[in-house]
Amino acid sequence: MRNILLIIEYDGTEFCGWQIQPNGYSVQQCISEALEKLDGEAVMLVGSGRTDAGVHARGQAASFNTCSRIPAEKYADALNSQLPESIRIIESKEVPQEFNARFSAKKKTYKYRIRTGNTASALNARYEYFYRGKLNIEEMQKACLFIAGEHDFSAFMASGSSISDTVRTVYEARIVQNGNEMEFTVTGNGFLYKMVRLLVGTLIEIGAGRHNAEYMKQLVEGGGSKKATFAAAAKGLVLHSVEYE
Amino acid sequence: MRNILLIIEYDGTEFCGWQIQPNGYSVQQCISEALEKLDGEAVMLVGSGRTDAGVHARGQAASFNTCSRIPAEKYADALNSQLPESIRIIESKEVPQEFNARFSAKKKTYKYRIRTGNTASALNARYEYFYRGKLNIEEMQKACLFIAGEHDFSAFMASGSSISDTVRTVYEARIVQNGNEMEFTVTGNGFLYKMVRLLVGTLIEIGAGRHNAEYMKQLVEGGGSKKATFAAAAKGLVLHSVEYE
Repeated sequence: MRNILLIIEYDGTEFCGWQIQPNGYSVQQCISEALEKLDGEAVMLVGSGRTDAGVHARGQAASFNTCSRIPAEKYADALNSQLPESIRIIESKEVPQEFNARFSAKKKTYKYRIRTGNTASALNARYEYFYRGKLNIEEMQKACLFIAGEHDFSAFMASGSSISDTVRTVYEARIVQNGNEMEFTVTGNGFLYKMVRLLVGTLIEIGAGRHNAEYMKQLVEGGGSKKATFAAAAKGLVLHSVEYE
Repeated sequence: MRNILLIIEYDGTEFCGWQIQPNGYSVQQCISEALEKLDGEAVMLVGSGRTDAGVHARGQAASFNTCSRIPAEKYADALNSQLPESIRIIESKEVPQEFNARFSAKKKTYKYRIRTGNTASALNARYEYFYRGKLNIEEMQKACLFIAGEHDFSAFMASGSSISDTVRTVYEARIVQNGNEMEFTVTGNGFLYKMVRLLVGTLIEIGAGRHNAEYMKQLVEGGGSKKATFAAAAKGLVLHSVEYE
C-alpha cells in the first residue's frame, strides 16, 4: 500500500466546492471518480480541507492510499487525461504512510482579488470581486496589521460551524494595490469556516469608510463578542498553497 | 442623431464570435438586444471587425447611431446592467457623425497567450493555449522579426475568405516569455481571416523545432505560394485594442 499526494489546481466556478455532497458535483467527487477508473477500486481521497462552492485553488493538496502499480509521478498525467479542463493535477508523488493531507498540513495561504472602479472586467469576472467605486487602500493596509498573530477568530466564523477551538495563528496578512486591482494574501495554520471571506469583507467595509482600521482590531481581539457581518464573494478567493513539513 | 462609440471587453468562450449569425449567440447580437431595450428601437451596431468564436476582447470598438436622449457616457452603465458578466462596456462616448468603428480604425493590436510545460492551468484554461513540452523562445523571437512590414499576407489567410487585397502592414510583432507563459503581441493596420492565429501557429511550429525561423520569412515573403497550416486555438487570442485617429 502506498500513500500518494496530489497537488491540484481548479476553477471552482462550476463545482459545489471541494467536499463530496449529496446534491451537486464537487471537485473531490470528480477526482475520486477518475481515480477509481484508474485504480479499478474505490479510493478515499483526503483533502487538506474544504473550499466553498465557487472558491478556486492553485495548490490544493489531497492524498490517498492505493495498491495499484501505477508509478506515483504518473498519476498527474493519467488523471488529467480523465478530468475536465477546470481541474488539473499539477504534481503527484509518493509520501510516507503516516502523511495525511489534512492533519499534516502546517500552513495554508489564501489569496483574494478585488477590482475597484467604474466597470467590472469581463475577462476576470470569474476570479475577482468587483467593488464599484474607490476603496481606501491605506486604511485597509492599517487594518491588515491587526490580523496577524494567535487569536480567537470567532468573529470571523460563519454560523453553521460546530468547531469548538476557534483559536488560529495567522502568520501574515497583507493587501497590495496595482491600478484598479487589489490582492489580499493571508497565511495561517488553519482557517475557520468562511474566515478569509469575512476578513476580506471587513477590509472592504473599512476601505469603503463604513468603519476605520480599529474596527478590525476590535473584531480580532473581541473573541467573538462582536461578529463580522460581510463575507466577500467566493469567486475572488483562491487556495494558493498548503505547506507541509 | 448622435453617433456613439462603445469600448467593449468580452470573454468569448460562450459566444459564436462577434458577428451576428443565424445559428448561435454572438456578442454583437447580445449588445444589440440590450441597446434596443434602452433606445426602444432597433439599432445598427458596427464593430471594428469580427472576432471568431472563442476569441476574447479587452478593447473591441463598436459604434451606433441613435435618436435617444440618453447621455453618451451613460450607455456604459445602462448596457452593463442588461448584459451578462461576460460582456462589459468599458466606456461609451459621443463621436463625430462621420466616425465609423470599422472604416475609421487605423491600428489593431492582438495578444495571444501560450503556456508550455507539463500541465495546463485550470485557472487560465479559457484564456491560453497549452503546448505540452518546451518551445524554443529564441527561435520564435527570430521568426517574429520577419513579420513586421508591409506584406502580402496570403500565406496567413484561412480559406473561406473572399478578400482580394491581401496586403497588410504589421507595425510590430513580438513574443516574450515569463516562466511557463509566452505572450505574443501584434499590431497592424488590419488582419486577414485567422491571420493572427496562423502567425501564432507558425511560431509554435518553429518553437517546437518543426521549422526554423527562416520558414516564417518564406511564408511572409512568399505571397501565398506556400500556406501556413496550423491556426492556434481561438481561446488564446484577445483583441487588445483598436486605435482611431
